[in-house]
Amino acid sequence: MISRLDSLLGEQQVSTREADLLCYGFDASQIKGTPVAVTWPETINDIVKISRFSYDHDIALLPRGAGTATTGSSVPPQGAIVVSLERMHDIDELNIEDQYVVVQPGIINGALQKELSRHGYFYPPDPSSLNFCTIGGNVATNAGGPRAIKYGVTRNYVKELEAVLPDGRIIRTGAKTIKSVVGYDIKDLLVGSEGTLAIIARITLSILPEPETIVTLLATFTDLEPSGKAVFKIISSGIVPRCLEFMDREAIKVVESYSPTGLSDSESLLIIELDGDVKSVQRDSERVVRIIHTLKGEVKVAEDSISRERIWKARRAIPAALFSIADTKINEDIVVPRSQIPEMIVFLRRLSEESGISIVSFGHAGDGNIHVNIMVNREDEERYTTAKALVKRIFEKTLSLGGTISGEHGIGITKAEYINMEIGHNEMDLMRGIKRLFDYKNLLNPGKIFP
Amino acid sequence: MISRLDSLLGEQQVSTREADLLCYGFDASQIKGTPVAVTWPETINDIVKISRFSYDHDIALLPRGAGTATTGSSVPPQGAIVVSLERMHDIDELNIEDQYVVVQPGIINGALQKELSRHGYFYPPDPSSLNFCTIGGNVATNAGGPRAIKYGVTRNYVKELEAVLPDGRIIRTGAKTIKSVVGYDIKDLLVGSEGTLAIIARITLSILPEPETIVTLLATFTDLEPSGKAVFKIISSGIVPRCLEFMDREAIKVVESYSPTGLSDSESLLIIELDGDVKSVQRDSERVVRIIHTLKGEVKVAEDSISRERIWKARRAIPAALFSIADTKINEDIVVPRSQIPEMIVFLRRLSEESGISIVSFGHAGDGNIHVNIMVNREDEERYTTAKALVKRIFEKTLSLGGTISGEHGIGITKAEYINMEIGHNEMDLMRGIKRLFDYKNLLNPGKIFP
Repeated sequence: MISRLDSLLGEQQVSTREADLLCYGFDASQIKGTPVAVTWPETINDIVKISRFSYDHDIALLPRGAGTATTGSSVPPQGAIVVSLERMHDIDELNIEDQYVVVQPGIINGALQKELSRHGYFYPPDPSSLNFCTIGGNVATNAGGPRAIKYGVTRNYVKELEAVLPDGRIIRTGAKTIKSVVGYDIKDLLVGSEGTLAIIARITLSILPEPETIVTLLATFTDLEPSGKAVFKIISSGIVPRCLEFMDREAIKVVESYSPTGLSDSESLLIIELDGDVKSVQRDSERVVRIIHTLKGEVKVAEDSISRERIWKARRAIPAALFSIADTKINEDIVVPRSQIPEMIVFLRRLSEESGISIVSFGHAGDGNIHVNIMVNREDEERYTTAKALVKRIFEKTLSLGGTISGEHGIGITKAEYINMEIGHNEMDLMRGIKRLFDYKNLLNPGKIFP
Repeated sequence: MISRLDSLLGEQQVSTREADLLCYGFDASQIKGTPVAVTWPETINDIVKISRFSYDHDIALLPRGAGTATTGSSVPPQGAIVVSLERMHDIDELNIEDQYVVVQPGIINGALQKELSRHGYFYPPDPSSLNFCTIGGNVATNAGGPRAIKYGVTRNYVKELEAVLPDGRIIRTGAKTIKSVVGYDIKDLLVGSEGTLAIIARITLSILPEPETIVTLLATFTDLEPSGKAVFKIISSGIVPRCLEFMDREAIKVVESYSPTGLSDSESLLIIELDGDVKSVQRDSERVVRIIHTLKGEVKVAEDSISRERIWKARRAIPAALFSIADTKINEDIVVPRSQIPEMIVFLRRLSEESGISIVSFGHAGDGNIHVNIMVNREDEERYTTAKALVKRIFEKTLSLGGTISGEHGIGITKAEYINMEIGHNEMDLMRGIKRLFDYKNLLNPGKIFP
C-alpha cells in the first residue's frame, strides 16, 4: 500500500529503506519507534496528499521537525508514516515594516535568526537546540529558551498558522495584525499540541529589532541559597534581564570536568544578561552588581562578544557534559513560581543526597524553569528504578509549590503517565474532546500527551 | 420555575422585577434583550448552582460583567437568566513576589488598578471603559486598550482561569508560573469566547511594576497622511511607546465642539506616551520630537500628570462627544498591519466624502487598531441603510490590506453576519465543534459569534 505514496508524491519524497526508518525512528528522548515509511513533503499540497492518504487508509502520521524533542513527542507510533518537514525550510515573506516573517515549518531556528540578523532583527525564542531544531517543532511544543524571561515563549510570537487537518483540509488561523478577536482562538490550540491536532504548514511570526547593546554578567556564590535570593531581588527591583540562568554545584562540576573554565570553587552561579539602550543597560548592570555583592557573591561583567561567549560556553556545555556522569539522563523541566526557587533547589539537593543519585539542576531561573537531570546508568536496573521514582516526588513537590510539570518540553510519551497529577478530570475530558474534534480517527501522532 | 432559583440561592440573589429585567437587558450596543430573571452569584458555588439549574431545565444563561460590550455580546438571549457577576468583586490574593493577582470576575478594571498602584504595580490592559468594565468581561472579550501597543492585550496577562462549564462542572486551566506546556491550551480558548463556553469564576493575572516615569507628547499635523507616516517611523526606529493614539479631523472637530481644547486647526493628531527609566524616556522623547518635526508636525511635551491629563482629556471625550453629530454610532474596531494605516485612513475619508455620511476615525494607531465610527440618525431610515452598507465595504478593504475585522470588541451580535468574511468554512466548523464540546445544549449566551 505504501508504494502508492510514490505515485502520489514522487520517488524522491518517499522512502521505506531500513536506514531511513531507523534515522527517523527516534528523537532526543532515546525512545525508538517503528515507522513504515518516511515522506518529505515539499509543499502544503504534498502534506494534503499525505494526510488524505493516511486518512483513507487509516495509517498514523508523525509530523517531524528535527527530532530534538526530549519527551518522545516526535517518536513515530507503531506503523506510522513519518512526515519530515525538513525540505519545507524557506522564508516565504520577510516584512520589516510590519515586523513579521512568514516561514515554512522546516526552517531551522538558528537559520532564521541569521537571516533576521542581517536586517537588524531577531526572533526571541531561543531553545538550546536552536542550531538544529525547526520552527515547526518549536510551535508544536511551544518552545522557550533563556530569553523567555524577558521576551516570552513561542506562543507569544505566533501570529498566524496555516495547517493541514488529518482529513486533508487546510485551515488558516490567527491574524497578521497585532490584535484580533474574531471567534475562538484555534491558533493557540495548535501551539504546543505536539503534532496531535494538525500538521503545521506555514507560520507567521513576530520579529523584533535587535537591542542596541547586550551585557552579560557571571555571578558566583560559595553557597546555594544566595543565588535563588539574587534571582528574586533582581526581578523585584524592576530589572527585566534578557536571560537569567542558574547552575548548581553539580552542573558546575560536570562542566568543569568536561572543559575547565575556572569555576570549580562555586556552589552555584548565575548568568545574567541585560539588553537595551546603552545607558539603561549600564545602569541596570551596576544595580545587579550591587545586589550580587550584598549577597556575598562575586561577579564578572562581559561587555564584548568574546567574553560573553566564554560565559555562555559553560552553560551550553551542560547537556553534553552530563553524560560524563552516567549514560542516561531523566530530564525534567519543571517550573515553580519564582519565589519558590530557593525551596525547590534545596529540596532537589536533599533528594539527591538521600537517594545517592546525581541530580544536576540548571536552567532558566528567571522564569522559575529548572531543568532537573537525574543521572543514572541504564543497565543498573535497581538504581534506574529508584531514579524513576524520584520523578514523581519532584513533580509532587513542584505542584505543591504552585508549579507546573513542564515549562518547555511538553508531555510527549515520557510525561504522559504524570499528566493527571496536574490536569484534572474535567480538563482532561475537554482535551480528549478537542483531540476527537480535530482527529476523530486518532491518526495524528497517536499515543502522545494522553495517558 | 424561576421561583425555585430563590430557594437555591436566597432571595437577595434573584430578581424577576421589571426594573431589573430592563436594566440588565441591554449593553453598550443599545440592543435590547428579554431575560426572565437576573441572578447575582456571590461564590463559585452559586455559579455552579445556577448552571446546574439552567442545564436541568434547558434555560439559557448570560454571564454579565458591566455590560460595556459594544457588539451586543452581553445582551441576554430571549428567555435567558442573567448571571451578573458584579458581587464577586474581591481580590483573593495579591502576590507581589511572583507578580500576580487572583481576582474574582466582577472586579472593576479601574478598582484593580487603584489597589495595585498602592503597591507600585499595574495591570497593563486599559480599555477606555476601565472605570466601569469588569475584569471578567475583559477576559471574555480579550479586551485591549491604548497600552496594548507596548504591553499587549488581556490574553497576554491571563495566567490561570477557574470557570464553570454549562453543566456545572468546575475547570481550572493555565498555570501560575511564567511557562507551562502541559496539554492543550484550554485557557486561551476561554479568553475572547464572549461568555459562550464557560462562566469565568476566578482569574489569575500577571502584574508589572510601575515604570519610573511617563512622558506624553501631543503631535498635530495640518495634513492627514503625515500622522500615519509618523506612526510608522516611530515604531521602525525601535521606540516602543506605551501608547500611540490617533485622531482624524472629524474626531478633533467633534471633541472641540464638545469641549474646546484649542486643537481646531489640525487635520490629524497623535498622542504618544513613553514610559521607562528617566534617561531612556528622555532620549526617546527627543527622538520622537525630531520625527514629528521632519514630517512638519507640531509637538507639545507633557511631563507632569496635570498636563498629561489635559492631553488625554480630548482623547477620552470622543465617545461621548460623538453623539453631538448623530444619535447612533456604528462602531467598528478594525485592525490593519501598521504599514497600511495611511492607506486605510485615506480610504475612510474618501468613503465619508462619497457617501456624505460622517465617519469619525480614531484609536490605537500604534498597533493598527482604528476605531471607525459611522455616525447617523437612527430615524433616517435611508441614511441608516446607506451607513450599514458602508460597514461591509470597510471590512472588505480591511481584509484586503491583511487586516482583521475586530481588534478588541469581538463579534457578539453586530458582527456575526460578517464573521464569514474573515473566518473560512473549515475554521468555522472547528469553532462550532468547540462550542458543542463545551456547551452541547447551547445554553451559554446562545446567538453570539456564530452567524
